Amino acid sequence: MGERQELAGMPVERLETLADGVFSIAMTLLVLQIVVPAVTEPELVSQLSGLWPPILIYGISFVVLGVYWVGHHYIFRVIQRSNLTLMWINIVYLMGVAIVPFCAALLGRYPLTVIANVVYGATLAATAGVAYGMWWYATDRHRLVDPNLDPALISFVSRRIATGPVASLVAIGLAFVRPELSILLYALLPPFYIVSVDIDRHYASLPKH
Amino acid sequence: MGERQELAGMPVERLETLADGVFSIAMTLLVLQIVVPAVTEPELVSQLSGLWPPILIYGISFVVLGVYWVGHHYIFRVIQRSNLTLMWINIVYLMGVAIVPFCAALLGRYPLTVIANVVYGATLAATAGVAYGMWWYATDRHRLVDPNLDPALISFVSRRIATGPVASLVAIGLAFVRPELSILLYALLPPFYIVSVDIDRHYASLPKH
Amino acid sequence: MGERQELAGMPVERLETLADGVFSIAMTLLVLQIVVPAVTEPELVSQLSGLWPPILIYGISFVVLGVYWVGHHYIFRVIQRSNLTLMWINIVYLMGVAIVPFCAALLGRYPLTVIANVVYGATLAATAGVAYGMWWYATDRHRLVDPNLDPALISFVSRRIATGPVASLVAIGLAFVRPELSILLYALLPPFYIVSVDIDRHYASLPKH
Amino acid sequence: MGERQELAGMPVERLETLADGVFSIAMTLLVLQIVVPAVTEPELVSQLSGLWPPILIYGISFVVLGVYWVGHHYIFRVIQRSNLTLMWINIVYLMGVAIVPFCAALLGRYPLTVIANVVYGATLAATAGVAYGMWWYATDRHRLVDPNLDPALISFVSRRIATGPVASLVAIGLAFVRPELSILLYALLPPFYIVSVDIDRHYASLPKH
Repeated sequence: MGERQELAGMPVERLETLADGVFSIAMTLLVLQIVVPAVTEPELVSQLSGLWPPILIYGISFVVLGVYWVGHHYIFRVIQRSNLTLMWINIVYLMGVAIVPFCAALLGRYPLTVIANVVYGATLAATAGVAYGMWWYATDRHRLVDPNLDPALISFVSRRIATGPVASLVAIGLAFVRPELSILLYALLPPFYIVSVDIDRHYASLPKH
Repeated sequence: MGERQELAGMPVERLETLADGVFSIAMTLLVLQIVVPAVTEPELVSQLSGLWPPILIYGISFVVLGVYWVGHHYIFRVIQRSNLTLMWINIVYLMGVAIVPFCAALLGRYPLTVIANVVYGATLAATAGVAYGMWWYATDRHRLVDPNLDPALISFVSRRIATGPVASLVAIGLAFVRPELSILLYALLPPFYIVSVDIDRHYASLPKH
Repeated sequence: MGERQELAGMPVERLETLADGVFSIAMTLLVLQIVVPAVTEPELVSQLSGLWPPILIYGISFVVLGVYWVGHHYIFRVIQRSNLTLMWINIVYLMGVAIVPFCAALLGRYPLTVIANVVYGATLAATAGVAYGMWWYATDRHRLVDPNLDPALISFVSRRIATGPVASLVAIGLAFVRPELSILLYALLPPFYIVSVDIDRHYASLPKH
Repeated sequence: MGERQELAGMPVERLETLADGVFSIAMTLLVLQIVVPAVTEPELVSQLSGLWPPILIYGISFVVLGVYWVGHHYIFRVIQRSNLTLMWINIVYLMGVAIVPFCAALLGRYPLTVIANVVYGATLAATAGVAYGMWWYATDRHRLVDPNLDPALISFVSRRIATGPVASLVAIGLAFVRPELSILLYALLPPFYIVSVDIDRHYASLPKH
């Protein structure tokens, strides 16, 4: 794939650095939504057991952000050049990532409401949609990638990224039926990604950089 | 442009590392100003819809910090040497960046007050002013940049950076007329920066490092 | 040990970057559990002296996370290849690391309760258990390490990592006897790790990368 | 000065990475102590003007941490090898850095009390004392530095680092006279460091790495 180039003054690696920072902070800030109860000691056990919704949402959100982080790196793995447009798509994408702790706190506090599930799902869908747009922008007519990059890989990753917004939209729909189903779908998404390791085979053929 | 040099013990890259850290943390901390309402479930929808001011300010501030981050890298792209003075200008600059989450929280809570808009605008103006001073200090008589750096690029970037403080001062003025106009100006600033991609052309001629 | 390789699209270094971010943020967020008292000035001294439990737990947790961070690097020092499974074990591991500030806040507020000590100990035990699994997965049949990596080093590190979960389980048991003993054990753990520097000798023979 | 070496499994650069993370987070978390007042809009201006103590302490603490960060890099500039002891001194040092946001919040809330000034000063003194110990440990009999490192540079930096704890102890003493004097001393410290640029001359002779 050769050396990475930069059209503008901002090397591709810088975009990844900012992304790594925002991802690791957003993932760690998720814990702030789990609030230590202020009670007398005899009530502490029962109060703690009532914390399972925020703890569950913490776990799901941490893994979802992990999925997104992995996806972000798969995208940048093949991007060789940056320009201002890519930079700004990236910043808007990170804006979606950084607001997830709020949505997780909302869902952890009101796990069985339609609105909290819709806000959570819409944020994830919009953020994944921006990732899809970033991939499309970078690969369309091989704008920012290697001219010889395999079109099969491009369309494979496109379909793969598209599962994110689609799944989030399904989860939003499920929230109107029963909010529990919506949360269940989020919980199932990461195992789906982990099991489907085909992506490694597509990427195995790429030269290292 | 050749190798970066260091007069003192602190390589230029270190200054960028600290800046990357402070920027990504400040951008992610912006979300903490959006507070999950503590209400009964029936009231949740109406309470959430009342959250649009802090969410709007979150979005604007995230993009403004993104603009500043991009500008910081354009500055450091051409700086080849560091010294203690540059290091301290950089730290004072980051002090301005790191206080933005407070100003954003203030504006998100009191979006239509003159004082919140003035505090927000004054912080952005002062911080951009420090960036202007940093650029001036580094490029004046080519102090910390390549002796052959094109003076046209220097004055182009100077004018570009100067738009930041000027726009913030205009926003402060508008706040006294109507605070909404002040916020509107901030919302328009990022698109302005994104569209005006001339800067890429100036930087395209720089050798990579 | 030669060059690090990547089977999939994610280089090993990326996993360490995310880990460094989560560790440094989680360690720094520990301080948020120490809350400035809201009292009149004459009461301030007595209120502050009542803060010793959260301050003690801050110190212990900071050092424990430091131990875990060091351990994480010892693991990644010998890993040469990454794959999706390793990536996900790593993310689950970081999920444990990132929830420590909550457990520390809980223990700092209720230091003498059984439940707070059990939650703290169980989190540390589970997280260290995931580290053990990560090491086992990477070294089993030399899956992700150098084929010539000394089996003696592998089993030495295995035993070493195993002390973490074992000690945490002992601490949980002690919590049922007297919570103070549990906290005392955590306080003693770091010195134990610091003194037992044998690990350096095992690693000294590794080539640098 | 040659290549950096590692006795143990942890390269020197890793220690700096963790330090950079903790410093940038601690510096950015300082802003959380400045709390947006919850008042009616007419009272907002007067409430905000009452925020000057935490804002002043924010500025002082940001610069003090900047000074410490710069000092940390001067120390690591000459360290060529790491071992477990250095790693642990470094972690204890970062524990002091990471608790500064609490001390700053305390001082910002109770700026004119003796106790808040003593806690603030004692933390800074202890942390700077650990830095002094780290420098002594690394340079004593040239343990972790280049065997040919100029002893004049070593003793110059020793004296320089020693000013930190000494100044903090003086500030503690002043707090018992008048707390304002203590704060004033902290405010004067950074300019002192900035002006005294002799350190650059000592470091200018070092080879780059």
